[in-house]
Amino acid sequence: MPDDRFYPHRNFAALDADYGDYARARVVVLPVPYDSTTSGWVGTRDGPQAIIEASGNMELYDVGIGREPYRAGIHTLPEVAPHTGSPEAMVARVESIVGELLDDGKFVVTLGGEHSIAVGPARAHASRTPGLSVLAFDANADLRDDYLDSPYNHACTLRRVLEFAPVTQVGLRSATREEHDFIRQRGLTFLSPLEFRAAGPEAVAAQLSDDVYVTIDLDGFDPSQVAAVGTPEPGGLLWDEVSELLALVAQRKRIVGFDVTELAPSLGPKANAQLAAKLTYRLIGLAVGE
Amino acid sequence: MPDDRFYPHRNFAALDADYGDYARARVVVLPVPYDSTTSGWVGTRDGPQAIIEASGNMELYDVGIGREPYRAGIHTLPEVAPHTGSPEAMVARVESIVGELLDDGKFVVTLGGEHSIAVGPARAHASRTPGLSVLAFDANADLRDDYLDSPYNHACTLRRVLEFAPVTQVGLRSATREEHDFIRQRGLTFLSPLEFRAAGPEAVAAQLSDDVYVTIDLDGFDPSQVAAVGTPEPGGLLWDEVSELLALVAQRKRIVGFDVTELAPSLGPKANAQLAAKLTYRLIGLAVGE
Amino acid sequence: MPDDRFYPHRNFAALDADYGDYARARVVVLPVPYDSTTSGWVGTRDGPQAIIEASGNMELYDVGIGREPYRAGIHTLPEVAPHTGSPEAMVARVESIVGELLDDGKFVVTLGGEHSIAVGPARAHASRTPGLSVLAFDANADLRDDYLDSPYNHACTLRRVLEFAPVTQVGLRSATREEHDFIRQRGLTFLSPLEFRAAGPEAVAAQLSDDVYVTIDLDGFDPSQVAAVGTPEPGGLLWDEVSELLALVAQRKRIVGFDVTELAPSLGPKANAQLAAKLTYRLIGLAVGE
Amino acid sequence: MPDDRFYPHRNFAALDADYGDYARARVVVLPVPYDSTTSGWVGTRDGPQAIIEASGNMELYDVGIGREPYRAGIHTLPEVAPHTGSPEAMVARVESIVGELLDDGKFVVTLGGEHSIAVGPARAHASRTPGLSVLAFDANADLRDDYLDSPYNHACTLRRVLEFAPVTQVGLRSATREEHDFIRQRGLTFLSPLEFRAAGPEAVAAQLSDDVYVTIDLDGFDPSQVAAVGTPEPGGLLWDEVSELLALVAQRKRIVGFDVTELAPSLGPKANAQLAAKLTYRLIGLAVGE
Amino acid sequence: MPDDRFYPHRNFAALDADYGDYARARVVVLPVPYDSTTSGWVGTRDGPQAIIEASGNMELYDVGIGREPYRAGIHTLPEVAPHTGSPEAMVARVESIVGELLDDGKFVVTLGGEHSIAVGPARAHASRTPGLSVLAFDANADLRDDYLDSPYNHACTLRRVLEFAPVTQVGLRSATREEHDFIRQRGLTFLSPLEFRAAGPEAVAAQLSDDVYVTIDLDGFDPSQVAAVGTPEPGGLLWDEVSELLALVAQRKRIVGFDVTELAPSLGPKANAQLAAKLTYRLIGLAVGE
Amino acid sequence: MPDDRFYPHRNFAALDADYGDYARARVVVLPVPYDSTTSGWVGTRDGPQAIIEASGNMELYDVGIGREPYRAGIHTLPEVAPHTGSPEAMVARVESIVGELLDDGKFVVTLGGEHSIAVGPARAHASRTPGLSVLAFDANADLRDDYLDSPYNHACTLRRVLEFAPVTQVGLRSATREEHDFIRQRGLTFLSPLEFRAAGPEAVAAQLSDDVYVTIDLDGFDPSQVAAVGTPEPGGLLWDEVSELLALVAQRKRIVGFDVTELAPSLGPKANAQLAAKLTYRLIGLAVGE
Repeated sequence: MPDDRFYPHRNFAALDADYGDYARARVVVLPVPYDSTTSGWVGTRDGPQAIIEASGNMELYDVGIGREPYRAGIHTLPEVAPHTGSPEAMVARVESIVGELLDDGKFVVTLGGEHSIAVGPARAHASRTPGLSVLAFDANADLRDDYLDSPYNHACTLRRVLEFAPVTQVGLRSATREEHDFIRQRGLTFLSPLEFRAAGPEAVAAQLSDDVYVTIDLDGFDPSQVAAVGTPEPGGLLWDEVSELLALVAQRKRIVGFDVTELAPSLGPKANAQLAAKLTYRLIGLAVGE
Repeated sequence: MPDDRFYPHRNFAALDADYGDYARARVVVLPVPYDSTTSGWVGTRDGPQAIIEASGNMELYDVGIGREPYRAGIHTLPEVAPHTGSPEAMVARVESIVGELLDDGKFVVTLGGEHSIAVGPARAHASRTPGLSVLAFDANADLRDDYLDSPYNHACTLRRVLEFAPVTQVGLRSATREEHDFIRQRGLTFLSPLEFRAAGPEAVAAQLSDDVYVTIDLDGFDPSQVAAVGTPEPGGLLWDEVSELLALVAQRKRIVGFDVTELAPSLGPKANAQLAAKLTYRLIGLAVGE
Repeated sequence: MPDDRFYPHRNFAALDADYGDYARARVVVLPVPYDSTTSGWVGTRDGPQAIIEASGNMELYDVGIGREPYRAGIHTLPEVAPHTGSPEAMVARVESIVGELLDDGKFVVTLGGEHSIAVGPARAHASRTPGLSVLAFDANADLRDDYLDSPYNHACTLRRVLEFAPVTQVGLRSATREEHDFIRQRGLTFLSPLEFRAAGPEAVAAQLSDDVYVTIDLDGFDPSQVAAVGTPEPGGLLWDEVSELLALVAQRKRIVGFDVTELAPSLGPKANAQLAAKLTYRLIGLAVGE
Repeated sequence: MPDDRFYPHRNFAALDADYGDYARARVVVLPVPYDSTTSGWVGTRDGPQAIIEASGNMELYDVGIGREPYRAGIHTLPEVAPHTGSPEAMVARVESIVGELLDDGKFVVTLGGEHSIAVGPARAHASRTPGLSVLAFDANADLRDDYLDSPYNHACTLRRVLEFAPVTQVGLRSATREEHDFIRQRGLTFLSPLEFRAAGPEAVAAQLSDDVYVTIDLDGFDPSQVAAVGTPEPGGLLWDEVSELLALVAQRKRIVGFDVTELAPSLGPKANAQLAAKLTYRLIGLAVGE
Repeated sequence: MPDDRFYPHRNFAALDADYGDYARARVVVLPVPYDSTTSGWVGTRDGPQAIIEASGNMELYDVGIGREPYRAGIHTLPEVAPHTGSPEAMVARVESIVGELLDDGKFVVTLGGEHSIAVGPARAHASRTPGLSVLAFDANADLRDDYLDSPYNHACTLRRVLEFAPVTQVGLRSATREEHDFIRQRGLTFLSPLEFRAAGPEAVAAQLSDDVYVTIDLDGFDPSQVAAVGTPEPGGLLWDEVSELLALVAQRKRIVGFDVTELAPSLGPKANAQLAAKLTYRLIGLAVGE
Repeated sequence: MPDDRFYPHRNFAALDADYGDYARARVVVLPVPYDSTTSGWVGTRDGPQAIIEASGNMELYDVGIGREPYRAGIHTLPEVAPHTGSPEAMVARVESIVGELLDDGKFVVTLGGEHSIAVGPARAHASRTPGLSVLAFDANADLRDDYLDSPYNHACTLRRVLEFAPVTQVGLRSATREEHDFIRQRGLTFLSPLEFRAAGPEAVAAQLSDDVYVTIDLDGFDPSQVAAVGTPEPGGLLWDEVSELLALVAQRKRIVGFDVTELAPSLGPKANAQLAAKLTYRLIGLAVGE
């Protein structure tokens, strides 16, 4: 029955069956409502649903890039159930699902949940894309080897990713002295917003290999743009400069997949979920076209 | 792909495809996120989604009635789009949809949205069920003939329903003098909570004909049970007494359909949406069995 | 211009000029947005406006008592500005204003703000009504002689009132051992909700003299009825039993004035302000008629 | 009685009778708490009251423009009651009221409520001011000819305005492909924030005729400035650049009236209402002087 | 320096050094801010701090039982850090800490956090107290053997406890059919609120052995008393009846320890934390005296 | 017992006993939860606790300045109890406590609470440091001689400070005409954000004497950075420019003490408390080193 007296079902971008069907869609959105190891304020478990709800308010034409990304087809999967046995098992679950989707020819967009779950999709991509590099947006270094008794704590995310792919990070403004020393010793490119502005987006793009996986911890943004994160830090990135950098990377490189994580919707206004939805939609448009 | 690593899709009671499929389901849940004529506090537009979200937290076995109502099959339709031309047109839209579902043999559960939309399903049932009576839960008389320049304002709901079916109301504690006089002149049974307790549930059931449509404005409940309504009134009904009355009516009569309206989720704790979800589920179990 | 295309101005009960005019009105509502000495959670400063806003959602006919209290005329004054020099000076200001209103023949309803400001209207009434007694609703004894370096702290309210009038209190469930001993030594009637239920409303009415001033700290209610107070205590009074007691006192005695205090609206749902508004309106109806 | 022991009555800028009296005031503030056709998040109904409440916290001297706008006299009308029959009837009501005020020689400031109501005051001004042009601030094109079954849906606002006056818009970052094509085909000046920064305020002013009506949908601002709107979009206008543009337009042209709409206060911090209040006050100062 | 110009440090009941010192205190409060396996709404991680903050607003004399429990000395430990490796490891950590405290002669009060952590203190008590029985307050059966891939999920709490002690439960109104069958087959005493009222508190006490550990999942209460839980269920227990039952058990038996869990403070008003604080304080008074 | 299974006690920066001990610490944090004279929105009483809670989420290494300020030792005192007799008495209490701490050789950081309490620490420093100048961040002039019947109202803060030390202010965008004239007549340096950007930080530093006390009313920041203040004003200072100015002042002058005031946490997202915590920590690092 659902005809034009109805809104579409609630899925990413509120697409109807034509554009939301799995078989036809080039893009798959995978919601992962997982929040088990965070140590700051709580609530990233509700992030995926908030982003999907907000995405229903977007126009399907993105006037900022002149594209209609939904034309590529976007299927929204149901939410991944948390594995509450251990964060390691949860990361493995997400990795296996993403791997199956990649093997099925899909472009995968993972919506967190806490940043730790990004290890799964990043590893699934890396194991299928030789030479993959990772571009990370984050306020925190996330380079601890272990935290609160687990190597899969969200504070260890980029340390885990570094084990299988090189990482370039933008947005850094919180780190332990040990993490800071690790960055120096390894010669990693982890840029604070001030350093990023001084260097310019081209310099960041130059660090990346041809195939790029993008992992976005929304606390990379300034809290004026996204307050709804568990560990907000002043002095962050602005919407326009993130948009510009992503457009440049999409132009120079091939973005093979990405995640958007750490939205804790109750910690900020709904405008924050709206930004996350538009960021996701734009990145689909930049990476996949229309 | 969605296997047991996933939660089910978000629909009423979080059912998987076996029990949520339209063709197989005896019950259809129709969400109507409409909030255009309310005059108190705002937000019933978000009611249906909040009830559906909360329903995912319920156990599917209702220990209070010893049944698993989902076994009858419950399909959740997408949300009805608002007709913003006029409330009259919106009521007509809901009536036509419910009528089509009834003609398709379904038991229809309408989730509001403001109470005015209940006129649609009530009329659709009345026109198909000769001798239908209506049992209403409400804090307000809703008997104005016209309000804020519309006869389909939510303050006119039961006046409109009275045009095609007799109404018995429980929960009354707010009315204009004109409404109060109207009740007396017409000899209507509109009972305050104190009067209801004095009379007992059997007396209410005795007012009803064999086939009963139930319309629930959640402000019939005491604000301690449901604060998340636009016009809360102290001195309302309690969960246990509403449950007992509904169980009795289901036993003595045939409940042919019902609606649950006026949840404005941001005005109270999530526990209010949870009550609305459980009320909906229990009423399905009482009316349809399992 | 304001004709029927407009809502009335925001005043208590949203009355138009006919019933809200000062000269014609028998009743005057005095908002006192004062919150300076409270020691629990904060926000009673916003109480008067929240009650007045909620009062605009009420029907003007109170079906519970079968009266239209607004017919007596209710004028709403602008808010009293806080005297931030000292709580003593603020109490004196409120007392002087209430005294002038009484001398002008008005029935005065004071809306707090913290409970301490009740000392002003209570004293203004006592000095003009020989033999006045005070009926207090409160969770706390409020019998400290001094608290946080001030004898006019809100924790001292009833101790101050006792200096000029006898007090009967209902709702007690929080007191220091010293306050508890003071109650015993003085033989005061301060009843917990359980004691009140055992004694019955007639026993409370029997404690009062012919002329009664009523002071209501909303935390006398159970938090299920009013959570929006700075010092909520479980195990409090219910709407129906407070209503019944007030109706009885109005029948047996003469209520000469009253206050409703301690609503901190951000600490609970809007339904709490609605209860406070309806309580105020009903008490006007009980005391003044229509 | 209200003397200096009281705050002024709650009206715009908390003015006392001298400056708030209708007859004496050059400026009239018209609150329109209407929210019936919005499709994003809900709550613009509460916008006017929130702006008026916040305006009581402003200093009456605007240090940013060196003026005391209240000296022109500002009268605040009660809220316009919604016509719940249809949005078309509501627009007509607002138009007729504004027309009467203009005919009475007043400068009219309309506070929404949803943006659709701006059609009323804009048309009232246009029909009395030959050659009027409209300057709009908005994130959305608002150029649909019809939406959700109504040509007066808030998504059609500027399309309706274009029927009687030329429109220059600033802030655009959300549009359908059809709206985007319409802008191109008609050669309209609808500027994104990035385009506006490139062009500069003089270029905008050059588009306007001598007499200008300003319509402000607050979502034109960046969500970091105003998150409390139903359809927030990242990448918007900043306070300083809007202020600068308005000052320039006031200097070069004659601003004959304006509206401020779409504040949904519960969706963001109170600071958003404060911005809306100050924007309103400043625009009065720029347009009317002191 | 901290003299009487200061409030005491923030600890349970806001005690000064005399009564809060570890060595002198008979009672130790152990906060466990753990929230990793919950499947409903989120936020029990913030429970312990909210209870401790609220406890600072209590009077130290509990007028309801006529005692000053703080005189026994109450030491508040810092918060237990979560073990994010697995819930099993976390339960083991809490058990070891509680065991050490018991071996040091303390009466231990554990504040959750999610209910799963109660397995730790219950086991620590059981292994030191032969014949211990457990009295549980809960809305849910918590009898799953495994949930979301972990036997230590919070939905398995009482199933784990049953492995080392008999359990009597009060408050049941949510269970799977399997859990319901398990209760019947094992002949467990799990009482719904209606069954509890029919049976009376003496019948519950009669189920218990001489030494009793009490575990309180706050969702056992009706949501009108405590809405701030992840899985609220209508039809729950009231403050007065829980208080009465606990007083009776304390009189008939020996309460050797207890926990209060599942407060998710952001999901309800602060009054809910206040109830949890007073419940904790009263239970100390009932179990330990003064 | 507290070993590494525990989080540290809640104090500023969540330090363990080694770095938090009073005797060893060079820095003392003094929380003053006072909110009695404010006239805008309410809640600065909860500011100190919110800042301290947020500070537990910071990394102890401040990557922005390359220092670990906690190594200097930071002791957190319990909260100063409010003197509710008068604001004058409260200011005197804070002054005496700060004076005693200074005489004990400590660097004192005062956390408000409303801005009025800054008069106490500023005077304590001025009376011990000849030639001290004060650097203020504020949206408001705070130069009234008296407000709401008290010279110690928070709107008079800088007027009181001027009686004992010269003041340079940055952030001004709200003032009465009288305050504006006072600034001109006295030739004070009170800079709006636009004026500050034009002048540059060196010009501000040049106004200061060798020894500087810094008083921060958080409303000096733009509401996009800190919305959680009682009187937010658009057009304020940004994090990066405040950080840069403070770093320059620390380099050119000697910062002898400071306060951070007016955080009303419930009025904005938790990110605002996080900014206040990091600002406090960085200023300790700039002033004291590590």
